[in-house]
Amino acid sequence: MSRFWSPLVARLTPYVPGEQPKHQVLAKLNTNENPYGPSPLALAAVRAAAGDDLRLYPDPVAGQLRQAIAATLRLDSSEIFVGNGSDEVLAHAFNAFFGGGGAVLFADVTYSFYPTYCDLYGLSYRRVPLDASFRLDASDYAGPCAGIVVANPNAPTGIAMPLERIEQILRQNPDVVVIVDEAYVDFGGDSAAALVPRYDNLLVVQTFSKSRSLAGLRVGFAVGQAHLVEGLTRVKDSFNSYPLGRLALAGALAAWNDREWFDKTRGLVMADRERTAGRLRDQGFTVLPSSANFLFAAHENVPAETILAGLRSRGILVRHFRHERIRNWLRISVGTTAECDRLAEATASIVGG
Amino acid sequence: MSRFWSPLVARLTPYVPGEQPKHQVLAKLNTNENPYGPSPLALAAVRAAAGDDLRLYPDPVAGQLRQAIAATLRLDSSEIFVGNGSDEVLAHAFNAFFGGGGAVLFADVTYSFYPTYCDLYGLSYRRVPLDASFRLDASDYAGPCAGIVVANPNAPTGIAMPLERIEQILRQNPDVVVIVDEAYVDFGGDSAAALVPRYDNLLVVQTFSKSRSLAGLRVGFAVGQAHLVEGLTRVKDSFNSYPLGRLALAGALAAWNDREWFDKTRGLVMADRERTAGRLRDQGFTVLPSSANFLFAAHENVPAETILAGLRSRGILVRHFRHERIRNWLRISVGTTAECDRLAEATASIVGG
Repeated sequence: MSRFWSPLVARLTPYVPGEQPKHQVLAKLNTNENPYGPSPLALAAVRAAAGDDLRLYPDPVAGQLRQAIAATLRLDSSEIFVGNGSDEVLAHAFNAFFGGGGAVLFADVTYSFYPTYCDLYGLSYRRVPLDASFRLDASDYAGPCAGIVVANPNAPTGIAMPLERIEQILRQNPDVVVIVDEAYVDFGGDSAAALVPRYDNLLVVQTFSKSRSLAGLRVGFAVGQAHLVEGLTRVKDSFNSYPLGRLALAGALAAWNDREWFDKTRGLVMADRERTAGRLRDQGFTVLPSSANFLFAAHENVPAETILAGLRSRGILVRHFRHERIRNWLRISVGTTAECDRLAEATASIVGG
Repeated sequence: MSRFWSPLVARLTPYVPGEQPKHQVLAKLNTNENPYGPSPLALAAVRAAAGDDLRLYPDPVAGQLRQAIAATLRLDSSEIFVGNGSDEVLAHAFNAFFGGGGAVLFADVTYSFYPTYCDLYGLSYRRVPLDASFRLDASDYAGPCAGIVVANPNAPTGIAMPLERIEQILRQNPDVVVIVDEAYVDFGGDSAAALVPRYDNLLVVQTFSKSRSLAGLRVGFAVGQAHLVEGLTRVKDSFNSYPLGRLALAGALAAWNDREWFDKTRGLVMADRERTAGRLRDQGFTVLPSSANFLFAAHENVPAETILAGLRSRGILVRHFRHERIRNWLRISVGTTAECDRLAEATASIVGG
């Protein structure tokens, strides 16, 4: 605490990201990174961009990258916004669209950055409980509010909802923006990006960090009608004209265009996810059906904290959340095939399976 | 305008950066980029970091980079904050420290992003006029306020002020934070970073974009006592846990450590600045004494807009600002020796000198 802090800063409860270990671990399955590297074409593009031109500012409107994303989605580049990771994109979206008064709505069990964004921008919020099986009931979101954010697939549960339920939320709340956070959608969810032409209150947010293996590059984007993208751009241009550097722009563009690498690596992750879920269930775990690159699992006899500690002592990091409703659950990122096997062997020895 | 925009977004007047031309120009002297490329060691470090590890999140606390900066400045890494360009660092600083009530003070002629940050965070501000020769009188900044930001050297004038004047401002206003924006300090100014141990209300902001030729990488930093860095970190961790990607961290670290390249290239820029200032004065220009990598010049007979258009038609971009007091002035970035010669030949033919 410092007497120089704004009242706001003193009140904030910052988000705490998963641990980035300083030393080598056997398997880092705690922050949902992709076990496979980025597209070789993306790495080549980054290396090619690492030249004297780095002395120059990047394109402040990221024209080429937005055009490439738009072309794939059969949209116009005026419907694409890019930022320094999807966390930044989400932050700008909360600021741009949720200030109209009333509470922002999101699930009680979801990405824990949402309440932090609300605090940062002085927005009130209400946590809407998921049902007993961690599913979202769209009718819970009817009624006046400042805006809605849903993660689909949800984190940390991995559960995806069908687009009909997203549409129900959009139709129930035509006067506020509904953000669909699709950080994990490429591992088995259906993207709401296809709904953008039909709903003027829809903003879809995606990231290059997960399915495109570029967590270390920091690129995210939003898809929405041009008037929403313009609102985001006004906030961005009042904060930082150049959120994406030249290397990020070059790497993201090449990664986006390498569809083959994208399909191959996400296919491997989905196959290992299903295989590992089966092994954990055989050991007495309840594993939620996942459409993401992680599993959310609880054991019937052994507390999560015991398993967390046992895994850690074996050099395997997974994520545990300090939230009452999920205190007995662990979120386990899907690693390589070998890492998944190591994880399942370790849990077997810990739970005595 | 969209009915979904927050009241804030509708009110904003976003900052407009200098033009990034889509096509090749003869000399791009409009955004104060360094004419020399980044340190070859920085480029090598970036290329080396462009590997499979990009799948992993970067170090959220940027430990190595902050340690390196701290070591050079003989400070602790708890006194260094890094961000996605100094624009982001400044934005977080306005949010973290200027919310205590009253007006934020800055010069009438200075970096035009400051009022935009104030608008973004709902802060009132007051522009304090520089004197007739564009110099800042520290006594104008005495009295109650929410905070103070001064650019030293100032932009777009290039005029540096001695540290005694910075100290006067710090002593006059012991209860508010004074931000010293030193984007251009390495081209001839004295850094206030040396004052950090003595003033608990001082925050110094610098960038890798200018003197380290890395505008395309997006890295900036702040230096201040640990309680101020902690305030900035709270804001950053409520916005984006990972503002700097792995490539930015690696490139900035290597650039910081390559003192030889830094000294050689800034020496070339300063020498060409003085030579070019002399040539422009011989042509009838008033050129302010510059401690930055640009010149601020006005001609005694020919209007700035005529010169701007004449240069543009010759493939030379410089910057003109829509601000009444400086409407007859042009800001000209110092290019390579050849670009400086081309500029001086072009102005000679335009002004008939």
